[in-house]
Amino acid sequence: MRTLIKNVTILTMNEHFDVIEDGQMLIDDENIIEIGKTCIQKYDQCIDGHHGILLPGMINIHTHLGMIPFRGLGDDCPDRLRRFLFPLESKYMTADLVYHSSKYAMAEMLLSGITTFMDMYYFEDEVAKAADEMKMRGFVGETIVDFPSCDSQEAYGGLDYCRWFIPRWKNHPLIVPFIAPHATNTNDLEHLQLAHQLATQYNVPLSLHASELDYEMDYFQKEYHMTPTAFLDHYDLLDQNVILAHCIHINNDDIKLIQKNKSGIAHCLVSNLKAAKGVMPLKELLENGVSVGLGTDGPSSGNTLELFSMLKMIACVHKTVNHDRGAFHAQDILSLATIHGAKALHIDHLVGSLEVGKKADFIIVETDSVNMYPLYDPYSALVYSANPSQVDTVFVNGKCLVRHKELQLEKLSDLKQNLQKASQTFSKKALEYAKEMPDE
Amino acid sequence: MRTLIKNVTILTMNEHFDVIEDGQMLIDDENIIEIGKTCIQKYDQCIDGHHGILLPGMINIHTHLGMIPFRGLGDDCPDRLRRFLFPLESKYMTADLVYHSSKYAMAEMLLSGITTFMDMYYFEDEVAKAADEMKMRGFVGETIVDFPSCDSQEAYGGLDYCRWFIPRWKNHPLIVPFIAPHATNTNDLEHLQLAHQLATQYNVPLSLHASELDYEMDYFQKEYHMTPTAFLDHYDLLDQNVILAHCIHINNDDIKLIQKNKSGIAHCLVSNLKAAKGVMPLKELLENGVSVGLGTDGPSSGNTLELFSMLKMIACVHKTVNHDRGAFHAQDILSLATIHGAKALHIDHLVGSLEVGKKADFIIVETDSVNMYPLYDPYSALVYSANPSQVDTVFVNGKCLVRHKELQLEKLSDLKQNLQKASQTFSKKALEYAKEMPDE
Ligand SMILES: [Zn+2]
Ligand SMILES: [Zn+2]
Repeated sequence: MRTLIKNVTILTMNEHFDVIEDGQMLIDDENIIEIGKTCIQKYDQCIDGHHGILLPGMINIHTHLGMIPFRGLGDDCPDRLRRFLFPLESKYMTADLVYHSSKYAMAEMLLSGITTFMDMYYFEDEVAKAADEMKMRGFVGETIVDFPSCDSQEAYGGLDYCRWFIPRWKNHPLIVPFIAPHATNTNDLEHLQLAHQLATQYNVPLSLHASELDYEMDYFQKEYHMTPTAFLDHYDLLDQNVILAHCIHINNDDIKLIQKNKSGIAHCLVSNLKAAKGVMPLKELLENGVSVGLGTDGPSSGNTLELFSMLKMIACVHKTVNHDRGAFHAQDILSLATIHGAKALHIDHLVGSLEVGKKADFIIVETDSVNMYPLYDPYSALVYSANPSQVDTVFVNGKCLVRHKELQLEKLSDLKQNLQKASQTFSKKALEYAKEMPDE
Repeated sequence: MRTLIKNVTILTMNEHFDVIEDGQMLIDDENIIEIGKTCIQKYDQCIDGHHGILLPGMINIHTHLGMIPFRGLGDDCPDRLRRFLFPLESKYMTADLVYHSSKYAMAEMLLSGITTFMDMYYFEDEVAKAADEMKMRGFVGETIVDFPSCDSQEAYGGLDYCRWFIPRWKNHPLIVPFIAPHATNTNDLEHLQLAHQLATQYNVPLSLHASELDYEMDYFQKEYHMTPTAFLDHYDLLDQNVILAHCIHINNDDIKLIQKNKSGIAHCLVSNLKAAKGVMPLKELLENGVSVGLGTDGPSSGNTLELFSMLKMIACVHKTVNHDRGAFHAQDILSLATIHGAKALHIDHLVGSLEVGKKADFIIVETDSVNMYPLYDPYSALVYSANPSQVDTVFVNGKCLVRHKELQLEKLSDLKQNLQKASQTFSKKALEYAKEMPDE
């Protein structure tokens, strides 16, 4: 089956940043087969984009989809991690809840134009099932951590989980299982090495939180007289299959090491700012040729799983940090959410730009909303004006998953109802925890 | 005519931050007459809020509504002011264009939940006409500047314009005309004094850009050995009718002077960051009891005229600037967009909170969108999750101007068409200017 998309401004995000005004794109069951002013091959059905902007689906390379039940809980509480997250997670997070939370979270991402995600949490077999059902492109990573967790009664149980779970999903066309040590400071060296060996053995990615926290930095300085990045490099734990989340506190030597090892980085600016942690040196990383993608972090950290508010915040914050209003052009900001994210995950031969031969992962953003006029520059309009409610159409791997702002395969109200049912105990407990929160 | 609003979570934004879950509010033609769990007086019509959040209409206290045709033009160009704004404005900005741009901009604000604005630009009689037709609550200020402008062939022509324009609108129930010297460094002392005298004579507000630019700070240091704030205070130009826009580069002494004179401040964070100018010391201003409201600045600066993306960015950026994730609770952030904005404009006896006797300026934000679940804390949901496309209903002064996300008095498509027609020459020239932009 061939589908023609017409009447759209096409941002290819290819290496020349080609823009095709009033362009057309033809796809078959899975792939882009023609793209230009006018497509000449035959098609079976046609989608009229109504002067919208056609661009590659966005890529969210760091999130925790099981955590929807935590959204908005204790947002401004200084000790939220110990007060809410750890106790509620260890006692009331179940496989069923992760499954329904992940489905709901995928709906949220799809409706906001995200077509590929990289998730790390617990019960990742459930996340993979959810992604399979929602037809999203997903990297699903089981967490390995030095304490018992909701899906393991002993510390580092995630390693065994990975041995079981990775082979189950290794050959899925859209799903990539991977290994997710929680952080540099919540895994000892031995288990980081075991995790890395597993990743190498299965040839899957490895992702972890790194250089995120002040006390993490202090710990490595005290214990190893090294930064976490230097530590990872020293023990051969950095390579091109590694994606580091956050990297707020990295120095120029760290950047060189990351570049040398061809590791990718998930920039989670909203989450980092909201937690008052600091600002990753984006300009320096890009100047050194490091592949940086964007991550929303979990719904308890950045609150939304979309990248539009992130695009605007990245442009604004990094221009100011660098005292340069001419830095970070809108097209470069949008690159982070598309082709750069794909490069960080090493799937840029498949997605991240609209080019013949690539997978048909794309979105159409409508330009009828009041904030989209005038439209001199579609990159500017997307970065500075658009919001996630303006995503009209979403395709993943050739399948239409969102059309006219509605999910096509599931009903959002059903997903919400299922999640509500699965989170009854959790929600009750969460409210009890919230009521005990002292006013500061 | 009495209207009951039911089935809503009410954020009163009163001094106790009272929240009424599943509450009701009753209004008559203009005023709030009852508010609580259940209203007991009779009503003529009823609005079902469908579990939405009812809150005071937002207040945008610094913008330039005539500048919609500039949106997205040269966004990342370092010298945009001289390259695009000044030449296009002086040659191609007309009364007709300001009128249609302002009507369109008001539609954009209403659709995003803003019910009161403070505008400063040229041809402000046209802006007042537009506000009168759109039924918004508007402060409309004519610009006074030391060069000829689009509505005056000579420098400082705005003073005469004010003498004509202010009496025309002085007694309008929703419109407040005011005097807007462009900035501290684009008016000489003599004309700042004349403008201030006029404001005192007519008893209207005065607003100007202040402490915004590096070269402004340098100029005042060199010329007067004072900060712009100290300069204004020294010449008795600061008082409670003054609203200062930006105030990025103010020190502790400046803050004391602003507090002493009871002047208000328009915090325009998005505009300031995007232009790489810096971050206003919000925490210190609030600790000193200064009334700080929020301003989008013009559509060429912040690109959108809504405050939702600003709320999230203010929380994130100021938490990080102060290294304190517990600072700036969501309810305090929302206060800036509502009651604090009203206080800065000295209209907090009329609007800014939902209380019996105040004007019926309110909005309902729907909570059906995917990003609004779960909803532990409505303040958090509004600040960290909501986007402007989720504003369902807007009332100004008892009149329903937006219902189910649609304008009620005008058609958006008509407003856009009229603006397109009025901006034909402008748009053509703008595109010519854009094509000459060198790639950096
Ligand atoms: Zn994370
Ligand atoms: Zn301004």
